Amino acid sequence: MQGHLADGLVEVGPNGRERYYDSSGYGRPRGDGVVLDPIEAAHLLYRGDLDAVDGAGLQEFLADNDGIVARFLVYKDLRQRGFYVSPAREGWVAEPTGVDFVVHPRGDGPWDGTVEYRVRVVGERTAVSVASLGDAVLAVVDEESELTYLETDRPAIGGDSLLETPPDVEGTLLGDRAICWSPPADLYERGFYGQPLDGDDDALQLSLLEAAYLADRGVLSVEGGADAIESRGRSVEGDRFGRRLTVYRTLRACGVVPKTGFKFGADFRTYETVEHVDELGHSELLVRVLDADAERSPRDIALDVRLAHGVRKRMVFALVGTDSVRWLSVGRLTP
Amino acid sequence: MQGHLADGLVEVGPNGRERYYDSSGYGRPRGDGVVLDPIEAAHLLYRGDLDAVDGAGLQEFLADNDGIVARFLVYKDLRQRGFYVSPAREGWVAEPTGVDFVVHPRGDGPWDGTVEYRVRVVGERTAVSVASLGDAVLAVVDEESELTYLETDRPAIGGDSLLETPPDVEGTLLGDRAICWSPPADLYERGFYGQPLDGDDDALQLSLLEAAYLADRGVLSVEGGADAIESRGRSVEGDRFGRRLTVYRTLRACGVVPKTGFKFGADFRTYETVEHVDELGHSELLVRVLDADAERSPRDIALDVRLAHGVRKRMVFALVGTDSVRWLSVGRLTP
Repeated sequence: MQGHLADGLVEVGPNGRERYYDSSGYGRPRGDGVVLDPIEAAHLLYRGDLDAVDGAGLQEFLADNDGIVARFLVYKDLRQRGFYVSPAREGWVAEPTGVDFVVHPRGDGPWDGTVEYRVRVVGERTAVSVASLGDAVLAVVDEESELTYLETDRPAIGGDSLLETPPDVEGTLLGDRAICWSPPADLYERGFYGQPLDGDDDALQLSLLEAAYLADRGVLSVEGGADAIESRGRSVEGDRFGRRLTVYRTLRACGVVPKTGFKFGADFRTYETVEHVDELGHSELLVRVLDADAERSPRDIALDVRLAHGVRKRMVFALVGTDSVRWLSVGRLTP
Repeated sequence: MQGHLADGLVEVGPNGRERYYDSSGYGRPRGDGVVLDPIEAAHLLYRGDLDAVDGAGLQEFLADNDGIVARFLVYKDLRQRGFYVSPAREGWVAEPTGVDFVVHPRGDGPWDGTVEYRVRVVGERTAVSVASLGDAVLAVVDEESELTYLETDRPAIGGDSLLETPPDVEGTLLGDRAICWSPPADLYERGFYGQPLDGDDDALQLSLLEAAYLADRGVLSVEGGADAIESRGRSVEGDRFGRRLTVYRTLRACGVVPKTGFKFGADFRTYETVEHVDELGHSELLVRVLDADAERSPRDIALDVRLAHGVRKRMVFALVGTDSVRWLSVGRLTP
């Protein structure tokens, strides 16, 4: 059968409806014909179910529309996995903005109006606005045209690690840390603040974040107070320090204990439940702190996800806005 | 015993030599006394083997010299691991430049002039010139004052994957890939170039790097030739494309097959031996391409090392200069 390109859609005449839409979920009906998205037309050309579009076979059709190749590869893959897939066109699916395809649950078709995944296709080099994720699956096409699916979500973050009233303590700012020379044991053992200078003495090293947080709460007194700590932090980390302190505060407020994620290349690893450091569980999250309008390349996101997966943790981005922190989790998906 | 700070060294008088140098490898002899590096003095104060320096105990001494705290933590850790450690001062050790400490083999002391590790201390936020590494161990002090040791080396890179004369092939540039619609089987199966468009057809997708390399060698013909491919590459990746192409060429020239490292957040994963794609082994290296004068934060380096370790590969940085590629490997070390 032959197709004809008009207004960005491929029209297929009489009997197209039954053959393409009714029996295999391509396009949308128009009379007893059907209109196809160019990607659907490419797939039908690829399968040999459509002879040509305005005389062009698959090779010429892709050459004339090489902007659709990445999406064609994802569409082809999802079809091979046994899904019916609707191009996210106005009037074809609900809420088409922000995604390229709506994937219907296995066994369902476009006529059911059901949704398994909402999929956005990106090249590995295309920077993605992290805040724009959360309800879409990212289908990343890498430079060798292999596909990686990343599911994104907006998780609730919380725990029950609450040391109600940390005891007062004195400290000294030393380089980019504060040292408490003789702190009460609870500060470390139940609050999980700082780390001992050594196994066999009780001096405690606080990170600048921990120190700033504790000083701000009136728990820690150092010369110059919280301001001195925060300005030290800004001098070694710039604005990043302020964003990380905001996230640190927010996590503590939610009953979650943040510790450095340095060994994992992240800002924090977190513990939902800390009763005593001698009974620490596995940390659950890796948190990367980003500005609310940060963009990130799929390559970097894939690196984070891969790493978190490798250490059995969940990758979470903390998006710091002017007066709030939004959480976004990213994980691998096999459709 | 009491110390006295003079010209950046801590002098300890009569009998200091025997007590500190001869018996435990601190400082250097001066008459029957000894001169100590401030870090050694801090460690002796910490151990209680030195009473004070100009009247100051450990807390005041560190407060007055807070620039030494990070190095003090590393020195203390290495001592606890059973090493004698010499501060890298002119006249104290050979080649003191570029490192902070020379660690002597267990059982040896400064009087043996032997070297187990040359150690450079950095904070996790200090950007490091990657090219300056290769013969030093990085001791990274993270924000919670935990230590991570990274060994660096200049590895030889080579393999025996050589498809002597890849067969000629025609391709079409489509978006950021080239597709060969009916290539000879060897191109993929023995050369491991590209990846099939699909299991059950023979169309082959080449990355822009593979296409540019093959076109440059006169193997692949596309409209516009190698220039068209490289300009497409630069348009999607900027200068990075040129650096990556240089590394791709160099690896192929060494008999190593580079494939995308996207899933690992790296530029390439590499195969030393490819005879047939059906008998592929485990890829050995993860390669990150950097400009010759690139700086990288210990945080990023730690992320790379962690990831490579997790997938049982070796992390290698390819430093691209004007007319050469230098290799630098980084791995975890437990002294």
